[in-house]
Amino acid sequence: MGMLSLAGGLPAPELLPVDRVATATATVLATHGPRSLQYAPTEGMAELREIVATRASHAATAHVEQAEDVLVTTGSQQGLDLLARALCDPGDVVVVESPGYLGALQAFAASGARLIGVATDADGLRVDELEQVLDGLIVAGTPPKIVYVVANFQNPSGATLALDRRHRLLDLAARVGFVLVEDDPYGALRFRGEPLAGLRALAAGRDDGASGLTVSLGTVSKIVSPGLRVGWAIAPEWLRPALVRAKQATDLHTSPLTQLIAAEVLADEGFMSAHLEQIRSTYRERADALADALASEVGPGIEIGAIDGGMFCWGRLAGGESATDLFEVAIDAGVAFVPGDAFCLDDSGRSHLRLCFTTLTPDELGQAASRLSIALSSLT
Amino acid sequence: MGMLSLAGGLPAPELLPVDRVATATATVLATHGPRSLQYAPTEGMAELREIVATRASHAATAHVEQAEDVLVTTGSQQGLDLLARALCDPGDVVVVESPGYLGALQAFAASGARLIGVATDADGLRVDELEQVLDGLIVAGTPPKIVYVVANFQNPSGATLALDRRHRLLDLAARVGFVLVEDDPYGALRFRGEPLAGLRALAAGRDDGASGLTVSLGTVSKIVSPGLRVGWAIAPEWLRPALVRAKQATDLHTSPLTQLIAAEVLADEGFMSAHLEQIRSTYRERADALADALASEVGPGIEIGAIDGGMFCWGRLAGGESATDLFEVAIDAGVAFVPGDAFCLDDSGRSHLRLCFTTLTPDELGQAASRLSIALSSLT
Repeated sequence: MGMLSLAGGLPAPELLPVDRVATATATVLATHGPRSLQYAPTEGMAELREIVATRASHAATAHVEQAEDVLVTTGSQQGLDLLARALCDPGDVVVVESPGYLGALQAFAASGARLIGVATDADGLRVDELEQVLDGLIVAGTPPKIVYVVANFQNPSGATLALDRRHRLLDLAARVGFVLVEDDPYGALRFRGEPLAGLRALAAGRDDGASGLTVSLGTVSKIVSPGLRVGWAIAPEWLRPALVRAKQATDLHTSPLTQLIAAEVLADEGFMSAHLEQIRSTYRERADALADALASEVGPGIEIGAIDGGMFCWGRLAGGESATDLFEVAIDAGVAFVPGDAFCLDDSGRSHLRLCFTTLTPDELGQAASRLSIALSSLT
Repeated sequence: MGMLSLAGGLPAPELLPVDRVATATATVLATHGPRSLQYAPTEGMAELREIVATRASHAATAHVEQAEDVLVTTGSQQGLDLLARALCDPGDVVVVESPGYLGALQAFAASGARLIGVATDADGLRVDELEQVLDGLIVAGTPPKIVYVVANFQNPSGATLALDRRHRLLDLAARVGFVLVEDDPYGALRFRGEPLAGLRALAAGRDDGASGLTVSLGTVSKIVSPGLRVGWAIAPEWLRPALVRAKQATDLHTSPLTQLIAAEVLADEGFMSAHLEQIRSTYRERADALADALASEVGPGIEIGAIDGGMFCWGRLAGGESATDLFEVAIDAGVAFVPGDAFCLDDSGRSHLRLCFTTLTPDELGQAASRLSIALSSLT
């Protein structure tokens, strides 16, 4: 085996539904003809907005009153960019998880926002710590414009925000008035345990204003295909015009062809449930193989938590070694990962590793763990 | 006939190559499989960069040393947005044509740039006036970061920048040091006369530094399909890393599926030459029908120039009437257009109309001119 990479963040390529996309494309072009290839509304194609609204309501990931609540974006990365543009002036504060998703840090930083990281643990964002940070920001006269979380199987930590913390986060949004952005690419990839309601779904049941402050970002990237570049923002009405204006200036609209392909595939319930089950069972097998191999090959040198879904495992070097130092010897040993520092605004990720388990087979994952063990031994 | 719209800016829908895109998609998915649907490089797919480089060099629209000079964008609108982000801080000056393309004004304004308009005439941007404006800006210590032109069949004026002005514009870029951005969606739609070399092609022959300051934006929107959302920026090497960083934060990358479809269609020379000939002959017939009908139905009340390509005709109300006033009565008469004010930073477009001739048949264009005549008569 050549280099074994746990460093990516890609869906398993063999599970990308090439044949289903081929038939969907043929159907879309035969049914919609020139409409698939013409300029299109900035808000998105009605067919996609409808099926996203239906699926979100069904899965309780996000409260959707009507399809108009859904704005289509060019991947959910663009949702982050549009929110930053619509809400942030240079110097405005955005609170992110630390460790957190790099692409979000880039999108917010590009708008000149000042990023403040709040720690996470096995139950996701430390909402108690967030509360202290907010108090300080309020005293300083700089309350945040946005608090950004990946509540399900976070990238990179894999952690899922506990239900009580979700409620407390909504309490804080209502009290302080920031926009709470839940980015949910991985929620549908749960392969163990029961799903938790999304923040926008929880907010809908409240009368304290939290529902008017909560945005849900979604994408087909991890459930159908990242290459379609189709995502969406489910946002309160007051925020939508600014998002649409920003999108118009950015790329006019997302491809109607890829939107209609996505809508066609998402609307095929039989296909989607079988396809998601296949993704989940594959990822469960791989996550378990990685966890087992780390336990048997590396032992107590790397600590990991339970993996119940998503694509990532977050390891901690129990001896306090530097993951960046480990990375250098690991490459020589034929295994790659992403050192935790890359995801943090401070040095709290120093001894952490992000391990992506989606693209290697169980055998390869076993071999990767073995090489990690060799690398770690050579370090100490 | 219901409302006849000269207001759009859409390619003729019946000329969108639905069947060719269908076969291209089938080929792409069969050939590239998961690669079409996976995450992809921010710079773009190699196949598309290659064919764009080849076509640009062949058509002398833009000098391309190598495929790496080409960065793929999500439509050329995104090229504008990325240039604004890469080059402009709030308050920086961007010079645009007045009248000029609205989407560009929006993209530059979104970055907080200060827009300054320079007039155009039948030979495009008034480069003599630009020179005066530049002198003033230099004295004020605020030379522009970008000068933006649509040199071929400009939107909205339809004007093409004369060759001597192209050279003078490059002189100014070299002397002042601004980035000269040529946006060229319409160059391939010339249906009369000889094409002029693009600014980046002209710059390549110079040794004064202009070639390192000239960017060419292109797109498949008017020659294949706007719905693919595939464009490109051909940019000097020093500028490309900043554009790539901005794109990464914005949408990670453009859809590999639509990129590979675009590459497949563009690489089919036989199809492309026949398809472009069909677009050109159709648009020529429609442009001529509109010009003839305006002459016979409206007469000297509307002045227009020669139409040699593109999608737009720019009319001037010879009596100095307000085009916005005309618009209101025109709608009642069953014909729509865009009043010139929408494209100008000052009131110089007050008596102008943008008339798009691409989506109506010759008969409909005749009827539209007749209704315009009725509306104009009712106004005076």
